[in-house]
Amino acid sequence: MRFNLPVLVYQEKNCVHNHADEIAQMGKNALIVTGRNSSKKNGSLDDVINALKSKNIKYTVYDGVEENPSVETVMEAREIGVKAGCDFIIGIGGGSPMDAAKAIGVMIYHKNENKDFLYKSVSNSQSLPVIEVPTTCGTGSEVTTVAVLTVHNEKTKKSMSHRIFPRMALVDEKYIKNAPLKVICDTAIDALAHIVESCINNNATEYSKMFAKEGLEAWSKFKDVLLGNREATDEDFHNMMYASTLAGMCIAHAGTSLPHGLSYPITYELGIPHGKAVGYFLPGYINEATDEDKEFVLKAAGFESVEEFSKFYKKACGYEKFPQELLDKTGELILSNQRKLANCPYKVDAEVIKNIISF
Amino acid sequence: MRFNLPVLVYQEKNCVHNHADEIAQMGKNALIVTGRNSSKKNGSLDDVINALKSKNIKYTVYDGVEENPSVETVMEAREIGVKAGCDFIIGIGGGSPMDAAKAIGVMIYHKNENKDFLYKSVSNSQSLPVIEVPTTCGTGSEVTTVAVLTVHNEKTKKSMSHRIFPRMALVDEKYIKNAPLKVICDTAIDALAHIVESCINNNATEYSKMFAKEGLEAWSKFKDVLLGNREATDEDFHNMMYASTLAGMCIAHAGTSLPHGLSYPITYELGIPHGKAVGYFLPGYINEATDEDKEFVLKAAGFESVEEFSKFYKKACGYEKFPQELLDKTGELILSNQRKLANCPYKVDAEVIKNIISF
Ligand SMILES: [Fe+2]
Ligand SMILES: [Fe+2]
Repeated sequence: MRFNLPVLVYQEKNCVHNHADEIAQMGKNALIVTGRNSSKKNGSLDDVINALKSKNIKYTVYDGVEENPSVETVMEAREIGVKAGCDFIIGIGGGSPMDAAKAIGVMIYHKNENKDFLYKSVSNSQSLPVIEVPTTCGTGSEVTTVAVLTVHNEKTKKSMSHRIFPRMALVDEKYIKNAPLKVICDTAIDALAHIVESCINNNATEYSKMFAKEGLEAWSKFKDVLLGNREATDEDFHNMMYASTLAGMCIAHAGTSLPHGLSYPITYELGIPHGKAVGYFLPGYINEATDEDKEFVLKAAGFESVEEFSKFYKKACGYEKFPQELLDKTGELILSNQRKLANCPYKVDAEVIKNIISF
Repeated sequence: MRFNLPVLVYQEKNCVHNHADEIAQMGKNALIVTGRNSSKKNGSLDDVINALKSKNIKYTVYDGVEENPSVETVMEAREIGVKAGCDFIIGIGGGSPMDAAKAIGVMIYHKNENKDFLYKSVSNSQSLPVIEVPTTCGTGSEVTTVAVLTVHNEKTKKSMSHRIFPRMALVDEKYIKNAPLKVICDTAIDALAHIVESCINNNATEYSKMFAKEGLEAWSKFKDVLLGNREATDEDFHNMMYASTLAGMCIAHAGTSLPHGLSYPITYELGIPHGKAVGYFLPGYINEATDEDKEFVLKAAGFESVEEFSKFYKKACGYEKFPQELLDKTGELILSNQRKLANCPYKVDAEVIKNIISF
């Protein structure tokens, strides 16, 4: 079994400020990659800029990353970064800017390659150094090599082929404090899915399960917040970020499985938020697992049964039945792609997919 | 809090053979650093040589690392490595060769520096890439920056000032299968001490405690083997190596504390094996901790009380009272060095040291 997590993580209040020295060691000219709004509202962009200024590091802000960023966005940011002479990247935001940051780091490093390079398999990928500053509690992208991009001509999303770990992750729970509960729920369900899919997975190891146990324990502590039963405390915000980063560590070791695979066309076609789309398939995915796997994840997350978790999901993310036709098409699509089934530890056929989709 | 563990670890049977490709990526000319005997007996040296040969990598064997390796040994190996043009290091064995490998990697990289460089503080240490192949279940050196060397003119041992993580650790439980029970006990107590000292520690974090929980759980499963109550199974050997590597991950994050500090003069003066010397001070160290810390480590390790653990230690390592005069001197020495007390979460004065020494 493998343990591999070469990311320096700081998780603490004001960590961007506290570790300005280490940010400055990554280069002399930063490309900040972020979305249009949230990093301005939650203070993360200001924190990063102030840290860079305090160390006299030059920077350029690219704030054009949309939800489910496209290959085209990556190429646009690459051009700006190359022109500005940037030598390292700082991604700020949720999964979209953090994933895009890795892809942009690859494309600036390989500045003469065209966009096809993103999905070309090369034995030893290289990139500018990437720092990630998560401002949601879901993707765990700050500790994984995942960089999911929207590929319009395939009408879906998929991760680039290069495996680039961020050099550093600066995780400050204060950035999620003013996020709408809806966003917290969506991202927290994504984090849970990362943990669960890494456990019910052919690649699960003692190491991945160590991260999973710790992550589920932290996750179970703020369930009531997701249901709106109580206000979040500082400890809850800490646990949300901690669980999310641990969930990233889980998928860094074992990868995701069917719920993620099934979710991408749903998000592409309906614009359903990632966590909500993934969570839709999670109860069914758990239900098909061995009793041992089922008990491991449910117990650690604090659920008595799959049904209880299913109810929880519907309440936290808002109930919505996706169109049957799209679900069926999504199911067929995944069945036709052996690579997408590879991580699943149980046999997957049309009936199993039907059970998962209709749980 | 910080998470930092940039070591690619493979833990599995025949991992040296299985990952020959990745070994070959580290360089073109290896310096193998090992002791006189054990790596020849347990098959690890042959495995490494065969892996190198299969990839046409040149190598030189330096097998002059003694127990508690000295600065002089490091310098001798440096000379050989420089002459042979080595560009990466493979340490094979227990803590002594693995620690020496890191120091040799630093000194070959800085080939014009003299031995004082080992204890010089520089802001950004560099080294040849180091691969570690542990063949005991104690030090965890394969996943730490620790490189303890004997400094004869100070009559003690201390870690070099450079913080060099190995690039890769290849952990194969088959290498400990024929180790004498005495050696297994000594090294397993060392691993336990690493976990316990990382928990009862000012630097303990949720991450270090995650590794600790997992490590103590694995450790508790082979206690009966250490007492000689039953033969070790394959699962036990696996757990011994797993607990030892996890214990290394604990000290990589939190460091050790008083028992290690107190042990070094004992080992230097009496030649007492490292684990046995450290373990001597462990019950007393636990006993002075808060109830919460005490319960955390004792429960996870499967002991009902400090007294039970003390009995266990005496049975597993062989009871031996160290000379009172030496113990007193050791106690005074540590009290005079604030740096050695820094990790201990409770106030340490002459009385506390007396309690620990005489528990
Ligand atoms: Fe996800
Ligand atoms: Fe030790």
